[in-house]
Amino acid sequence: MDRKLLEKIKTGELGFHGIDGMLGIGKAVELRRSAVSEMTGTKLDHISKFSLDVETVTKRNIENMIGAVQIPLGVAGPLRVNGEYAGGNYCIPLATTEGALVASVDRGCSVITACGGANVRIFRDEMTRAPVFRAKDVIGAKSLVDWVSEPANFLRLKEKAEETTNFGTLLRIEPFVAGKSVFLRFSYDTGDAMGMNMVTIATDVAIDIILSENDVELVALSGNMCTDKKPAGINAVNGRGKSVTSDVIIKKEIIVEKLKTTAEKMIEVNYRKNLIGSARAASLGFNAHVANVAAAMFIACGQDAAHAVEASNAMTTMEPAGNGIYCSVTLPSLAVGTVGGGTRGATQQECLGMLGVAGSGNPPGTNSRKLAEIIAAAVLAGEISLIGALAARHLAKAHAELGR
Amino acid sequence: MDRKLLEKIKTGELGFHGIDGMLGIGKAVELRRSAVSEMTGTKLDHISKFSLDVETVTKRNIENMIGAVQIPLGVAGPLRVNGEYAGGNYCIPLATTEGALVASVDRGCSVITACGGANVRIFRDEMTRAPVFRAKDVIGAKSLVDWVSEPANFLRLKEKAEETTNFGTLLRIEPFVAGKSVFLRFSYDTGDAMGMNMVTIATDVAIDIILSENDVELVALSGNMCTDKKPAGINAVNGRGKSVTSDVIIKKEIIVEKLKTTAEKMIEVNYRKNLIGSARAASLGFNAHVANVAAAMFIACGQDAAHAVEASNAMTTMEPAGNGIYCSVTLPSLAVGTVGGGTRGATQQECLGMLGVAGSGNPPGTNSRKLAEIIAAAVLAGEISLIGALAARHLAKAHAELGR
Amino acid sequence: MDRKLLEKIKTGELGFHGIDGMLGIGKAVELRRSAVSEMTGTKLDHISKFSLDVETVTKRNIENMIGAVQIPLGVAGPLRVNGEYAGGNYCIPLATTEGALVASVDRGCSVITACGGANVRIFRDEMTRAPVFRAKDVIGAKSLVDWVSEPANFLRLKEKAEETTNFGTLLRIEPFVAGKSVFLRFSYDTGDAMGMNMVTIATDVAIDIILSENDVELVALSGNMCTDKKPAGINAVNGRGKSVTSDVIIKKEIIVEKLKTTAEKMIEVNYRKNLIGSARAASLGFNAHVANVAAAMFIACGQDAAHAVEASNAMTTMEPAGNGIYCSVTLPSLAVGTVGGGTRGATQQECLGMLGVAGSGNPPGTNSRKLAEIIAAAVLAGEISLIGALAARHLAKAHAELGR
Amino acid sequence: MDRKLLEKIKTGELGFHGIDGMLGIGKAVELRRSAVSEMTGTKLDHISKFSLDVETVTKRNIENMIGAVQIPLGVAGPLRVNGEYAGGNYCIPLATTEGALVASVDRGCSVITACGGANVRIFRDEMTRAPVFRAKDVIGAKSLVDWVSEPANFLRLKEKAEETTNFGTLLRIEPFVAGKSVFLRFSYDTGDAMGMNMVTIATDVAIDIILSENDVELVALSGNMCTDKKPAGINAVNGRGKSVTSDVIIKKEIIVEKLKTTAEKMIEVNYRKNLIGSARAASLGFNAHVANVAAAMFIACGQDAAHAVEASNAMTTMEPAGNGIYCSVTLPSLAVGTVGGGTRGATQQECLGMLGVAGSGNPPGTNSRKLAEIIAAAVLAGEISLIGALAARHLAKAHAELGR
Repeated sequence: MDRKLLEKIKTGELGFHGIDGMLGIGKAVELRRSAVSEMTGTKLDHISKFSLDVETVTKRNIENMIGAVQIPLGVAGPLRVNGEYAGGNYCIPLATTEGALVASVDRGCSVITACGGANVRIFRDEMTRAPVFRAKDVIGAKSLVDWVSEPANFLRLKEKAEETTNFGTLLRIEPFVAGKSVFLRFSYDTGDAMGMNMVTIATDVAIDIILSENDVELVALSGNMCTDKKPAGINAVNGRGKSVTSDVIIKKEIIVEKLKTTAEKMIEVNYRKNLIGSARAASLGFNAHVANVAAAMFIACGQDAAHAVEASNAMTTMEPAGNGIYCSVTLPSLAVGTVGGGTRGATQQECLGMLGVAGSGNPPGTNSRKLAEIIAAAVLAGEISLIGALAARHLAKAHAELGR
Repeated sequence: MDRKLLEKIKTGELGFHGIDGMLGIGKAVELRRSAVSEMTGTKLDHISKFSLDVETVTKRNIENMIGAVQIPLGVAGPLRVNGEYAGGNYCIPLATTEGALVASVDRGCSVITACGGANVRIFRDEMTRAPVFRAKDVIGAKSLVDWVSEPANFLRLKEKAEETTNFGTLLRIEPFVAGKSVFLRFSYDTGDAMGMNMVTIATDVAIDIILSENDVELVALSGNMCTDKKPAGINAVNGRGKSVTSDVIIKKEIIVEKLKTTAEKMIEVNYRKNLIGSARAASLGFNAHVANVAAAMFIACGQDAAHAVEASNAMTTMEPAGNGIYCSVTLPSLAVGTVGGGTRGATQQECLGMLGVAGSGNPPGTNSRKLAEIIAAAVLAGEISLIGALAARHLAKAHAELGR
Repeated sequence: MDRKLLEKIKTGELGFHGIDGMLGIGKAVELRRSAVSEMTGTKLDHISKFSLDVETVTKRNIENMIGAVQIPLGVAGPLRVNGEYAGGNYCIPLATTEGALVASVDRGCSVITACGGANVRIFRDEMTRAPVFRAKDVIGAKSLVDWVSEPANFLRLKEKAEETTNFGTLLRIEPFVAGKSVFLRFSYDTGDAMGMNMVTIATDVAIDIILSENDVELVALSGNMCTDKKPAGINAVNGRGKSVTSDVIIKKEIIVEKLKTTAEKMIEVNYRKNLIGSARAASLGFNAHVANVAAAMFIACGQDAAHAVEASNAMTTMEPAGNGIYCSVTLPSLAVGTVGGGTRGATQQECLGMLGVAGSGNPPGTNSRKLAEIIAAAVLAGEISLIGALAARHLAKAHAELGR
Repeated sequence: MDRKLLEKIKTGELGFHGIDGMLGIGKAVELRRSAVSEMTGTKLDHISKFSLDVETVTKRNIENMIGAVQIPLGVAGPLRVNGEYAGGNYCIPLATTEGALVASVDRGCSVITACGGANVRIFRDEMTRAPVFRAKDVIGAKSLVDWVSEPANFLRLKEKAEETTNFGTLLRIEPFVAGKSVFLRFSYDTGDAMGMNMVTIATDVAIDIILSENDVELVALSGNMCTDKKPAGINAVNGRGKSVTSDVIIKKEIIVEKLKTTAEKMIEVNYRKNLIGSARAASLGFNAHVANVAAAMFIACGQDAAHAVEASNAMTTMEPAGNGIYCSVTLPSLAVGTVGGGTRGATQQECLGMLGVAGSGNPPGTNSRKLAEIIAAAVLAGEISLIGALAARHLAKAHAELGR
């Protein structure tokens, strides 16, 4: 180890990123870890133990790498999914440290599978980016809106944007105005990629045409009407990423047998908690713990964990249905992909592999949709199980035993 | 390996959790992994490579364990923090697969530290749980509200609830009514624990007193007015977990030197994006990418990743201030802790150690508050850097280079 | 008529308000009306026909008066109300131009009264004003929050604020921080007054103490966390004005007889429309048409029509209940009063008189609460009737016949 | 007066509406008023004094009429408006009982007019109605969504819907799904009518085609995704009625002269109150008092007062602009019309006449748009004046003098 370099980092003469060019990347990771260890007086043994490929991840996924964090991985299932892309039984990988979560999803999977599986349908599949422009005044704002609404102009923007990508397709641009601020929300089909980077790069070049032909200034490539990783009505209503719904009818005897409660109680819990309670809390999330299941699958499968925010804009319903309960969950803004981003990690590839969605689908887009369908069904399993536990008043006990 | 057991799992005769009691836990993990591997036709080599202690995590953090996911860990900083609990320079651990994120936070840290560090203050620190009850009608609802508002009754509930915990203190109970549904929002000081399990268990026993003395039924231990892991006005306004604000004044020359843009441009980006854009999108998050930084630190430090949802209820401001910009970020609902939950993991302990907050503080509560202050400052670094990149129109380029 | 003055108004030499001091107020109204008539080429015969007292209204309710608008007034009822302040049968005055509205409420009153009347309870009764201050930074913000949380300081603010009013009582001050902006939400008991002016004036003087003892600047006497006349989570969750709930159990045979539909259908309409539909629309109003009934009663009774905004933050529930339906409506933010403001108008006094709430109650506060209870019950009548019409698919027909 | 009939009403033997067919409508109004007077022990002299035509209003605007309420009418202006439909100076009619409101708007008009007038542009003009259907499950939901997305099916729905109206045009249908609930949001151009009744009736007939060709049930003609008279993200984001923006640049000297404050102060008030404060309150309304001005003009001009709720979803901005301030207000959901509904009233016709928009425009639609432009400009005047008063700390004084 180069002691001199290490001292330079410790004194701040060199920044953490300064050593990547000087040493091979493997050595740089090691040196940086040593520096941090000494600077903070902390042993960093465990984070040095990893098998992911340093070359790969430091190129696209991480900077200033010092090691890896290990998140325990559990499996739930098998979960039967009846989608348009996913069909069959799946083992659901969940990376989490919340005790009782895997057990809960597992139980929900058992319920769903025993009832023939969860239906899933995708209603919209678009990734968005919304730059914000400043016009001179509302008259200028109207001019830009009119300009972008011209089919010929849209086509030119589309052509330009799509030059930057092999898979992305610009579907539409929706304008929103606030005073002299104009937001243009670009929506793309991004194939099997989650697509945030793709749409960022594509929109960036399209903007050049807008600027050259309109008397407006670009303020920011993202003007928050995208809306990325913030809770937002626009995503809850209009969708972002995959808009997907999963449902199942659970038979009464299965409820008694597996969930130790009754249909009536579960329906009431869902009603007073997920509908009345969320409404009274001025919430955008009408569900029990969608974010838990989404986050655990996201982390396992190399998705962006911060997209749990948009996943949590979800609604769960439970209603009487013949001899059982109709259960559904609707996720208007589920942003997932099977290529690019964190999907490249070695453990992540294995988790995607477990679901049969590692890499690009044939045709492109089918793998990411299959993943979305499986996640929606797993989320439904989580909802059913937690609502069941609340109805049976088992929640505190489960946490006392499994999760403390 | 017990081939027979493995086949039983594959055929479904045995559930995934069925083998834990039959084999030692280490062997159970291995067998389950093999079963999943065969069931899905996927090699699971990398997830088998981990150093975290199976005994520990399977007891409290995961069920049906098959291995671990590795998340690349980078470091940003040093970041100077001037809080009431955190004081000094910190190396910020970030576990993420989003290319450019660590680099961005690192740059923001450099800006903040060059300007003397970020101030941080915590305004409220309470973890909540809100069961929902069904009264006979609004008259019954009023009776329950009146009952719980009696100081003597509150004290008895408090005493009972606190019997279940060494550190938790019941601070208050706020009633909310919708028809005959009554939500009682219990707020606790939970010391160094994030506290979700603690408040769940404590509230569960307090409920027994309520039920025995009031003519109401418990519908669910959580009625969603808590609100846990869903975007909600109640958390954005009244807070949950730590309500914390961080700010710094950045000098103009630092902006030019480190962010390659100007104060004026950054102020306008923040204004049109984080304020106007979020407002126009009916958002509860008035920030650029708080969830990104929160999620990356949460994963590194053994926090609940799904709490990125509540962290994303944050507001960023940038305003002219003498020879520079006043920058702030306010997180009303930052749920973090340094004991319990995922903090027990080996790599997670190291990350907490890097920040000097592993385990319980002295007095209790000081470590979790220190962690909250550091996270808030790191979030501010992320905001400054991203707003700077947007102002300089560097975002697409950064993603094209680092993140694709 | 003074032709010269009139010409001066027409040419703009004199503003509309310029003549009040020159002529008696009655003549000023007439001259102004003539000027407007000539300026716009419009006959203004009808607006000149009114019986309200010009002296009274021009002193406190209107400036630049030119006449009055006539709003048709209908009556619904009798409506049986079982509140803590209102008890008995009431004739409900509704001023509206929306065809079918009075008929609809009337039908709902008939249903409620036939079932024994609507229960009503008030859960909170506070009017708020929230000035916004600018501190130097978050450290200064924390100082102000700490200062205002000192009981001794609160008492001094209370004493000062209450010097400006005979009826107002300052109950509490809640601080909210965003960066260096500090919002102090003052909550008052305002007796029988709706109280907006009272709390504005009282808070204004209390601010002087804050400014003299803290290193902060006042930015605005209202910082929108009040929140007045804007839809807001803070009001929906925490309440403003009266937080009130009304409910009733409707028998099945009454549903069939009077609403020509069934309990099951009404429950489903309420579920899919008022809960699922509003949730899916990212709404803060989980009701059918609360704003309609509130606005019509507000206009009749001299309330501020713009407070229909806050009234619309309401939730309606319908659930099976023995041999019928349990129906409720909860209005967290109903701002009404029986003294001051528009209650002074001659026709408005008559409408208040119909309800037995003209002027101040004994003790003060009882009249405004009685009015709130009656409005809540009338709103419930409107909800029941409209949900019934939708369930019977009569809505379009009713509008085609009565409202086109 | 028929004493026997009166007694029957008093005893409840006859309902309030029961006498309309027995007597001429004028006599019915009188008898009903007498009954109410006796039932409530209240003199009802003033509400009997009105000049509006009983035949007209009882046919389309009111049931169970007993008289009229008089709302004081003031005038503000002249206000210069530079729109696409409105051009020139307008006298703004405001019916209100809130002291200081007319004076405030008047002052704002004076500021705007002195600066050359307010620009106004309309960005969208559509009235919506969104029925909710129940499908068998998510598969059925997808089928309905696919069916309605077929251009041929849309055209048949359009044709059928438009048979019911001379002016309405069905523009598009947007589907939204939550579990097995499907909401179809029909958007129409409704010409000069506000259009709520028109779209209700048109959608009702289109539904018959949907039901006959799809395996779904209609639950309610309105499923709250319209969203009518409730605060809702869907309206704030996507618009309803007219989506309109008005702006003006105010010169610094005008601010000093007319508003007695400075540009800097006004910008800060708007920033901390309308943006930061509203965001912190989880509000959908980023403005000062849009609902006040909208409600006062709505009442004067025969609009539906409850639509103040949707108007209040508005955003006000103030920014430095050369030698002054750029001020704007954006109202995404302003529902107004000049024919039908309350516009038929005699006083209402006069107020519409003052603005040159009584009745149908040529071509149809131009009058309602002109009205929307004028309202938006008047709303802007109100915002400028109130922000100015807050900046000058005059608000409490104004209310103490004019409004108590």
